[in-house]
Amino acid sequence: MSRFLHEKFAALEAYTPGEQPRDRQYIKLNTNESPYPPAPEVVEALNQTDVAELRLYSDPEGKDLKEKLAWYYGCKAENVFLSNGSDDILNFAFLAFGAQGAVFPRPSYSFYPVFAQLHGVPYREVPLKEDFSLDVDKLRGTGCFTVLANPNAPTGLAVGLDAIEKIVVSNPDQVVLVDEAYVDFGGESAAELIHRYPNLLVVMTYSKSRSMAGARLGFALGDRELIEDLEKLKFSTNPYNVNRLTLKLGAAAVDAAPYFVENAKRIMATRERIGVALQGLGFTFPDSKANFLFIRREGLPGETLYRKLKERGVLIRHFSDPALADYNRVTIGTEEEMGAFLKEVRAILEEEGLV
Amino acid sequence: MSRFLHEKFAALEAYTPGEQPRDRQYIKLNTNESPYPPAPEVVEALNQTDVAELRLYSDPEGKDLKEKLAWYYGCKAENVFLSNGSDDILNFAFLAFGAQGAVFPRPSYSFYPVFAQLHGVPYREVPLKEDFSLDVDKLRGTGCFTVLANPNAPTGLAVGLDAIEKIVVSNPDQVVLVDEAYVDFGGESAAELIHRYPNLLVVMTYSKSRSMAGARLGFALGDRELIEDLEKLKFSTNPYNVNRLTLKLGAAAVDAAPYFVENAKRIMATRERIGVALQGLGFTFPDSKANFLFIRREGLPGETLYRKLKERGVLIRHFSDPALADYNRVTIGTEEEMGAFLKEVRAILEEEGLV
Repeated sequence: MSRFLHEKFAALEAYTPGEQPRDRQYIKLNTNESPYPPAPEVVEALNQTDVAELRLYSDPEGKDLKEKLAWYYGCKAENVFLSNGSDDILNFAFLAFGAQGAVFPRPSYSFYPVFAQLHGVPYREVPLKEDFSLDVDKLRGTGCFTVLANPNAPTGLAVGLDAIEKIVVSNPDQVVLVDEAYVDFGGESAAELIHRYPNLLVVMTYSKSRSMAGARLGFALGDRELIEDLEKLKFSTNPYNVNRLTLKLGAAAVDAAPYFVENAKRIMATRERIGVALQGLGFTFPDSKANFLFIRREGLPGETLYRKLKERGVLIRHFSDPALADYNRVTIGTEEEMGAFLKEVRAILEEEGLV
Repeated sequence: MSRFLHEKFAALEAYTPGEQPRDRQYIKLNTNESPYPPAPEVVEALNQTDVAELRLYSDPEGKDLKEKLAWYYGCKAENVFLSNGSDDILNFAFLAFGAQGAVFPRPSYSFYPVFAQLHGVPYREVPLKEDFSLDVDKLRGTGCFTVLANPNAPTGLAVGLDAIEKIVVSNPDQVVLVDEAYVDFGGESAAELIHRYPNLLVVMTYSKSRSMAGARLGFALGDRELIEDLEKLKFSTNPYNVNRLTLKLGAAAVDAAPYFVENAKRIMATRERIGVALQGLGFTFPDSKANFLFIRREGLPGETLYRKLKERGVLIRHFSDPALADYNRVTIGTEEEMGAFLKEVRAILEEEGLV
């Protein structure tokens, strides 16, 4: 850091995105991207006129897209907030709602503590139980801004709406944010609960099930007043932060919703098949409702598997957190990619004398 | 606001972007967009494969684009920061460098006080002189983070590098940010000074001369350590904030630089012609080095001109600041658009009995 940077950021450790090495072509199972392209209707939605019209700012209200999403999720446009990916929304939410401190489970999305540190929000991490299941009771009535990934990352485990509702009801003076980045792969969305609970904010993304990570689009659903709070912060930082092309593609993707639902089903089916194969090789993992598996193999350190797979051209995600040293998170790719992954895993197990 | 929002934001007044009414087709001279599309090479750069590849995250380092911009501006990639438009960079800079408070001229870009308020940065506004020229001496040695639009908005006036250098040299323990959003329309860039002054940050945008407002791309040039500070904050909020398509289009635009330089010349030539015509109608304005004119007509309140032009299908920008009540900011459009604008202005002057 330079000597000019505010000293409050001296100890801040930025988030580490999944690596994107360029030394060779990898099978990329490390950042939970979809292996499938966006819907054909999305791919065909852009033409040269759209690019020519980039001379104009995007609509800072994102009115058309908000209306489409509101229709899809059964709410009003005033209940929808749009921003540059769901990370961007999480960032605004920590800034907006963290006055009394924040609480979130651990392990969970490793970006949460970074947002908290960035904005000087004191935070407490509630450990998951031994089996990685959520300790719902410890998240009730905390009196803090509560953030909950459901399904959770990197474990993939999901909780039902009853658990979400218990937490939301127990904490009526604080916002409860449910991060549903992975909800379309078998989770249960809390979107319908926003009509009953003014303190519930549901955050979703186009980056996973909708195959548009590179387009940068996330949205939140919540009470009109919560959405207004987020709009206020967005209009105080970067009102046009959603790209003009992305607004158009995002609307096309809502129209093509059956495509992404079908894709999510394909990914879930691959997840089940690959899970069975991994179990046959002695791996264990929590029951995933996401587009990844959080795997562990007795006798094989997580870092070893990660490194050896990388040498063989397969990228998976290993985390620096010592508590997760035995594990790796593996994104569900195409059937073909997962076949190649399994082949290399088998070879490594043989090399290590584990089969 | 909701009762959940941090009380420190109660008094925060968000930035007001230029209006984008949809009730009819307007000649849009209110947000300083380019009237010309991006270069043909940019328009042709995208194909359906690029859209299909949106399933993948963008490169959070933006390596290719950084290298191209570094080449263009004669520095290294480590001296280039990329983000989602220059507003996004200004936001990070207020957060990063505002510890000892901020100073900027007034009137200037009305977003500066919003960033300061958002991040709790105490700020002082140094009034421009009567003729809107910069009071350079009052900006020297302030001991505060200093922000300076050059050319200035909404006045259009520019200062030379000698003035910039005086301010930078006088304030060695604070960052001096030069906001060069409009520099390509006749200003002088401080980019070359970054090699000499580790406290100088030069911020530019693709939104104006490069005709890509809707693509969301801004960049900053500065000492490696300053750039690292900004990267740290970006990677603590939203690492992938530049869209995948935008990274590609941004690189194509650097390759097509002669096109945008030529466009800027056309806009400057139109600015000169329209300026002469407006003077003939009794208007006065500061000498603009930007893609707009900041106009005033004795006997015609700014708000009246703004409102009557809007009724006639021409949008210009009027500011709520009472000190600017006599003025309007008029973006330079195509020759045709400016002809239509002049025609309506003449009609309004006649209607008001002013010619």
